[in-house]
Amino acid sequence: MKNILIASTSTIHGGEYLEYILDELAMFFKDTQEILFIPYARPGGISHNDYTKKVQTAFLKINKKAYGIHTFENPYEAVKEAKGIFVGGGNTFVLTHMLYKKQLIGILNETVTKGIPYLGTSAGSNICGLTIGTTNDMPIIHPPSFGALKLVPFNVNPHYLDPESNSTHMGETRETRIKEFHKFNTQPVIGLREGSWLDVKNDSIVLRGNLRARIFEANKIPYEVKPNTELNHLK
Amino acid sequence: MKNILIASTSTIHGGEYLEYILDELAMFFKDTQEILFIPYARPGGISHNDYTKKVQTAFLKINKKAYGIHTFENPYEAVKEAKGIFVGGGNTFVLTHMLYKKQLIGILNETVTKGIPYLGTSAGSNICGLTIGTTNDMPIIHPPSFGALKLVPFNVNPHYLDPESNSTHMGETRETRIKEFHKFNTQPVIGLREGSWLDVKNDSIVLRGNLRARIFEANKIPYEVKPNTELNHLK
Repeated sequence: MKNILIASTSTIHGGEYLEYILDELAMFFKDTQEILFIPYARPGGISHNDYTKKVQTAFLKINKKAYGIHTFENPYEAVKEAKGIFVGGGNTFVLTHMLYKKQLIGILNETVTKGIPYLGTSAGSNICGLTIGTTNDMPIIHPPSFGALKLVPFNVNPHYLDPESNSTHMGETRETRIKEFHKFNTQPVIGLREGSWLDVKNDSIVLRGNLRARIFEANKIPYEVKPNTELNHLK
Repeated sequence: MKNILIASTSTIHGGEYLEYILDELAMFFKDTQEILFIPYARPGGISHNDYTKKVQTAFLKINKKAYGIHTFENPYEAVKEAKGIFVGGGNTFVLTHMLYKKQLIGILNETVTKGIPYLGTSAGSNICGLTIGTTNDMPIIHPPSFGALKLVPFNVNPHYLDPESNSTHMGETRETRIKEFHKFNTQPVIGLREGSWLDVKNDSIVLRGNLRARIFEANKIPYEVKPNTELNHLK
């Protein structure tokens, strides 16, 4: 019984941290008052403490207490005993490096698979997929593997961006990058625009939010799906 | 006696492949008619053959013959015997993965350090630095290390992009990403805008082209340097 919320971003333009999704989170975490926060992705390189304070402020608005995994002597046990988990955004390589270093990949998969609600935003969403091979982040640390939590049978591309038709920049568009990914990998990739999330309830995977998502399958033309579409067939 | 040309891009907007820099390349490769081309970065996932054909067409305009390393039984010997080397752009992870797989990192460093002219564009420029940790590419393959050719004592960020002041997208700007890099790494990073290149002649490193470059040093405010500035002090 999985219960996972895979969000493209923590923050939408003009809004406060997690603001756009707080009502949803109050329901999502309705069975627990305490949420284990994993701050390893360190956006902008901020400290685990500073990042946790920011998250605590946001969760207090829905009367939840977030506590940082870095305050535990034994992070493995912290995951194992958690009643709710949030992995925040930042740098996906730094996050993955830390999860391997602290040997948390297996226990995270196990804990979430048995039904503990898991919220991911950005980097925390990237790691829900099969690999982190479709992150947008800069590879500032070399993790021992790109293998991720494998909670869903595809890869996620958060902060999905449409090509800018009037750009003069010669760097690759996001779509070009994901097409390159499919020259070397076979799993589908879901391009999640900012403000969208995937609602995973056991084997049901549904696109939520007001925006469409872009689906990339190997050897197919990419296509758009509307909010509330079931995506269970993707693998 | 190093002789290296580290270009941000192969192509500038509205131009043909290598067109903007062909006159420079005619001088740069003046002592050889034959150039070993390394197509491993496979932009858009194209084949080594197709990529090599594209490069051959461009080099024919300055009466040079490019030949692909993939046509050699022994790529190590091909590098060792080369009189000029070009490593083209594409995906830096795919390129690095192949260089390790074919055990070419050491011999490339050795051959270029003894004075064989080396041209890099984009991914081929990324690998001139200490690591590929400042590439913009998607990590579609996991290389055994991010360690690169270490031909210059810093990292390169090609296709450098200034922040867009009116963007509503919440993904990190390039500057934010490089600042994050410096939370975990100490070497300087040169943000090379499209149309710029570094001209490395032994210990002299000079910015060329018409544009300024942006220099990021750990624990310093980033700053701009003008074309023709010597960058030998960076390390």
